[in-house]
Amino acid sequence: VDAYSQLVAEGYLQARRGAGTRVAADRLSVAAPEALARDQANIRHDLSPFQPALDGFPRRTWHLAMGHVLRSASNERLGYPDPAGVPELRGSLAAYLARTRGLHLSVDQVIVTGGTRQGLALAWRALLGGEGRSVAIEWPGWGGVSETATDASLATIPIPVDEEGILVENLARTRADAVAVAPAHQYPTGSVLSARRRAELVCWARQGDRLIVEDDYDAEYRYDRQPVGSLQGLEPDRVLYLGSTSKTLAPAVRVGWLVSPPRLVGALVEAQRRCGGGPSPLHQLALAHLIERGDLDRHLRAQRRRYARRRDLLLQALARELPAAEVSGAAAGLYVTVKLPQGSDVPSVLAHARTRGLAVEGFVDQGPALVLGYAILHETVVEPVVEALAACVRLAS
Amino acid sequence: VDAYSQLVAEGYLQARRGAGTRVAADRLSVAAPEALARDQANIRHDLSPFQPALDGFPRRTWHLAMGHVLRSASNERLGYPDPAGVPELRGSLAAYLARTRGLHLSVDQVIVTGGTRQGLALAWRALLGGEGRSVAIEWPGWGGVSETATDASLATIPIPVDEEGILVENLARTRADAVAVAPAHQYPTGSVLSARRRAELVCWARQGDRLIVEDDYDAEYRYDRQPVGSLQGLEPDRVLYLGSTSKTLAPAVRVGWLVSPPRLVGALVEAQRRCGGGPSPLHQLALAHLIERGDLDRHLRAQRRRYARRRDLLLQALARELPAAEVSGAAAGLYVTVKLPQGSDVPSVLAHARTRGLAVEGFVDQGPALVLGYAILHETVVEPVVEALAACVRLAS
Repeated sequence: VDAYSQLVAEGYLQARRGAGTRVAADRLSVAAPEALARDQANIRHDLSPFQPALDGFPRRTWHLAMGHVLRSASNERLGYPDPAGVPELRGSLAAYLARTRGLHLSVDQVIVTGGTRQGLALAWRALLGGEGRSVAIEWPGWGGVSETATDASLATIPIPVDEEGILVENLARTRADAVAVAPAHQYPTGSVLSARRRAELVCWARQGDRLIVEDDYDAEYRYDRQPVGSLQGLEPDRVLYLGSTSKTLAPAVRVGWLVSPPRLVGALVEAQRRCGGGPSPLHQLALAHLIERGDLDRHLRAQRRRYARRRDLLLQALARELPAAEVSGAAAGLYVTVKLPQGSDVPSVLAHARTRGLAVEGFVDQGPALVLGYAILHETVVEPVVEALAACVRLAS
Repeated sequence: VDAYSQLVAEGYLQARRGAGTRVAADRLSVAAPEALARDQANIRHDLSPFQPALDGFPRRTWHLAMGHVLRSASNERLGYPDPAGVPELRGSLAAYLARTRGLHLSVDQVIVTGGTRQGLALAWRALLGGEGRSVAIEWPGWGGVSETATDASLATIPIPVDEEGILVENLARTRADAVAVAPAHQYPTGSVLSARRRAELVCWARQGDRLIVEDDYDAEYRYDRQPVGSLQGLEPDRVLYLGSTSKTLAPAVRVGWLVSPPRLVGALVEAQRRCGGGPSPLHQLALAHLIERGDLDRHLRAQRRRYARRRDLLLQALARELPAAEVSGAAAGLYVTVKLPQGSDVPSVLAHARTRGLAVEGFVDQGPALVLGYAILHETVVEPVVEALAACVRLAS
């Protein structure tokens, strides 16, 4: 009887008074998944600029770290998490960011997020949202910044970008309360914010007590010299710094962080608590374990070598197949920016590429250009991909 | 040279032109964590109503599932996830919810969230936010509903609750565009929405094309009869259903779901994409594996037996130690509601309890009452805890 009532409670059986018990067959059929499968069947090579080499994800190391966490974590750690993040990860990240990115911070300033978009949404809502305030954004730039700002009822003011990064003199003529920049490697232009512009930007923030949001999305990858330091290290009181594991490990880890000026930490943590953001403490503890053991450093060393090889092959192939194109942004990150000759029709290039199974991004705001992610491209396919792409460029000009 | 420049890039060394290379000692010291440790040292027994038995979390099963996921998932699964959730979990959840909670749904209506707060925030923003619209909430009720609604710029209209659940006739006199209810087990009163009120509520929603948000937070635990069905099963086109793993597995899993009326799915998925919500696909795949293998059902069977034992001990102890108190809400969930005699001073009871190491919640909106979570209380401590609590009640009356 117990077993029967259990199965009834779980919905496997249906009990009707006076009519016996029957298998609830109708409960077991669910409408077939219709709109679930993405139409990616025709894409053979994804040159998306934000995908790391997913075949390099340290699956075994991650599983071992998860095993360590599940054996050693206290029961309390399985309960509702601290909205600021688990202390172990906040501590590991503080040391890691000070060491690798030159941040000046205390552990209390680190807040663990579910990724950069989630961190941006949190920052806009908690610090600026809903009062007719405005945020300056790089143009062209990453759509996640403008989308999250708009969702927080902020007006966005686009500011042009050149080879030295954002034009701070244009910014200074606006009434923006904050600016979002990617100083280490601007997307999609690939430019690095110059020392002069950095100084100007910090000066702008100091003059009006304004906020700089620094998106440091792929700065761990720097191939030809010491990494450019963070803006946060220059002005910890006015820079809100954002990073994540999406480029270093994999987007599926869904762990990011922000480092806030001390005076804003309380509002951000309270906003995180109220909206229930933040990733699983189990993942947070696993990441802390990887950082503490040096596994993340080791993984990044291997990935840097892999990416440098793929980048070199890409640059050689581009020089051979598209000699008129001007390549920039190759010193860092996971992609290069390729300026095409004036008159090239970018939408047509992308359409031709798509028919050949290549997913490529492009932009036209500063003359025709393509953005080519190479991290995910295996060494053996770089040449044929660039040859196919060059054919598309020729067809579209 | 390579090794040196690697260590420089990672910040372990500092290279200065003409001054050699030195260990970047300053980079390794980070200010000590100050505000990290929660002041919980004095709490010996946490009677929080939302904590499941964390000592019952199936650590080994979860690790095995994670191993299965890490061995079998395609590389594509490690990339940026579908904002609606991974198809495997959406499919498993659809079948699970149809079977255990009587939902009528197709897979496309399931959206994976980072928990109930995150699902509420998504629903309010995507469906109602920012246009002077209002949502009715149960009063007294769970703070997460009003907090997320307020953050989405919605006005909240409190509606009283009695032993049959929310007073629909009061609701019908308001201009609310939506209502949030916990029909299976209202918090904190413990009442179950009666069949009559269910019909009235559905009728109210149909009349004005209004939305019912159903928070089904602990309905898997039902001890004395078949689980009460979901409202969603009665009116799939006007109920947005919310659930999570926080009570069935552990809050640290941070995986929840919502089931949306078909016409609202697109807006919710787009909002999820823009704000970067949603949990790690690795956790999503692990949960799908647990559901598919029947591990979740087995775990819930064990937890139900454990909770029924703890509940019975609690009810016996309360009958003996606090015979004048009226206990309700014991048929379901993880807590009971204890109405104290008129004139009992609830804040004073809670303060006395705290000095004895007991964290207890209470409310006064319907006369003095305590909310006692028993899921986390080991069988051996139920009696002494109730004795201590009874002493606090006597001290405060």
